[in-house]
Amino acid sequence: MTEDRLPSWRDTPAKQSIVDFVVAVTDRELDTFVPEMDRVAVFDNDGTLSTEMPFYTQLAFALDRAAVLGHPTSVEELRDGGLGAVVDLVKLTHGSITTDAFDTACRTWIASARHPRFGRLYGSMVYQPMLELLGLLGRNGFACWIFSGGGADFMRAWAPDVLGLPPHRVFGSLGSVEFRIGESGPELVKGQDIQLLDDGSQKPISIHQHVGQRPILAAGNTNGDLPMLQWTAGNAHRTLQLIVHHTDGEREYAYETDPILGAGTDELLAAAADGNWTVVDMAADWATVHPPDDWLGHVAAPGATTRAETR
Amino acid sequence: MTEDRLPSWRDTPAKQSIVDFVVAVTDRELDTFVPEMDRVAVFDNDGTLSTEMPFYTQLAFALDRAAVLGHPTSVEELRDGGLGAVVDLVKLTHGSITTDAFDTACRTWIASARHPRFGRLYGSMVYQPMLELLGLLGRNGFACWIFSGGGADFMRAWAPDVLGLPPHRVFGSLGSVEFRIGESGPELVKGQDIQLLDDGSQKPISIHQHVGQRPILAAGNTNGDLPMLQWTAGNAHRTLQLIVHHTDGEREYAYETDPILGAGTDELLAAAADGNWTVVDMAADWATVHPPDDWLGHVAAPGATTRAETR
Repeated sequence: MTEDRLPSWRDTPAKQSIVDFVVAVTDRELDTFVPEMDRVAVFDNDGTLSTEMPFYTQLAFALDRAAVLGHPTSVEELRDGGLGAVVDLVKLTHGSITTDAFDTACRTWIASARHPRFGRLYGSMVYQPMLELLGLLGRNGFACWIFSGGGADFMRAWAPDVLGLPPHRVFGSLGSVEFRIGESGPELVKGQDIQLLDDGSQKPISIHQHVGQRPILAAGNTNGDLPMLQWTAGNAHRTLQLIVHHTDGEREYAYETDPILGAGTDELLAAAADGNWTVVDMAADWATVHPPDDWLGHVAAPGATTRAETR
Repeated sequence: MTEDRLPSWRDTPAKQSIVDFVVAVTDRELDTFVPEMDRVAVFDNDGTLSTEMPFYTQLAFALDRAAVLGHPTSVEELRDGGLGAVVDLVKLTHGSITTDAFDTACRTWIASARHPRFGRLYGSMVYQPMLELLGLLGRNGFACWIFSGGGADFMRAWAPDVLGLPPHRVFGSLGSVEFRIGESGPELVKGQDIQLLDDGSQKPISIHQHVGQRPILAAGNTNGDLPMLQWTAGNAHRTLQLIVHHTDGEREYAYETDPILGAGTDELLAAAADGNWTVVDMAADWATVHPPDDWLGHVAAPGATTRAETR
């Protein structure tokens, strides 16, 4: 009933664990059945739903925007400067702008910027197997949510259309925002302060505050996703934890540490071994990595639900 | 097509403005048509969807819980102590407890506590005409959200079932939360600090951060709701702003200032006059105020959608 909907997944134990889980929680005859309203699935974005190398999509945007604003910098400078340098870049490129104008800046960039190695639009750097998984879950009554370390405003400028989710299902880090009555009416203005960094222990907290329900499925790719997966694994219902392991240097990238802030995978993989979680070996388990080049903007990915359907 | 679904609304201009609006944004033949995915409606809770006199439902819970915890206080002491006294009470009664245990405490209280004047369970102190409005909007493709000044954890313990909305559609003020691995597994522990007070200018900010879309309908009842209504009125689509005006001292309460923190209605009513917003005169416009006494727990209010349908 489900296998044929995951054509980009090879017939390996990883795919089987997904299929087994979906059957277990949707078959009313089974003890493991979960009512539809409790089928909450949460996903990290960078490195879990889309390529995050050689650096996060949002960082590529920030570097381009910093140059436009007259303050060019480089990835090397950021690596040397650490978190402080990244924060400064975010303040420069994400603050002191209305939310409407920022949304336009993001959409303009995402419509034309291309990945430095693959030459593709960033929207088509999502993972085809994960698109199929989102579609499979949506058709089986799951509500799929993204909890990204990336900024919510940036994520929502592209992820809803690309991934087929409504904007409220895409959450991430938050900057300060001010409400004011401007010349053209009421507006929201993005400030300079980072209000919430949606990573690590904050992810289960964000899930609690935004969804108000404990997930039964969680997917991530670095130690920063571990608390989200632990929180999900503690659900009394049957659960599934997925880890996207980057093993494919040819079709994507092979790495154990995230590109800028250096989050590793050691704790996550150790927890996976302890908990019998599903580790997806990208090279072995995925027949296809990315969708076709012209995919961006095609909301109807194979089997994906539309925004209206998933709201 | 819609009038018969609002039986508790009298045939007055207030009802007509609702019916006209729903027709205007759902009829594809009209210039004012709004695609389903953009039909976002936001509601205040206390005094807009449910009775907030003689004091907020959550305050009644806090007073009872303070007594149970061995630190009884009174409404009079709170009025004398102002916001500081309220914050101290919230810290005592809402902090240092896991989210699971707090949810249980709320549900236990809501199942038995009764309104001091009407003797009814608090869940049946919601407004029948607003239940019908939520149902009408749900059937017409709207996503209805609550943005309450009350605490999100408290609101979600009762409002989803009572109002027929999934938990994520109910948002409110937030306290600090900590993630930890406890003796029985991963858990979230509520701290003592108030992280976010979801009132006034914060409401449009919360709507932006949570929904990610600008509403086309907003409903409130005090000056604390004014920014939310202004933000909504600035939408390029046709919009509707509703104000619940408490004019009915016999069936409910007649007042212009909220019971504890003293938020008035003067600025809101002035903006309504300027903007041609809809002011609902409770005494004149509502044929019925509250649902039947035994209503609590009946998720299927007349015409209301179920949690599963509205997710």
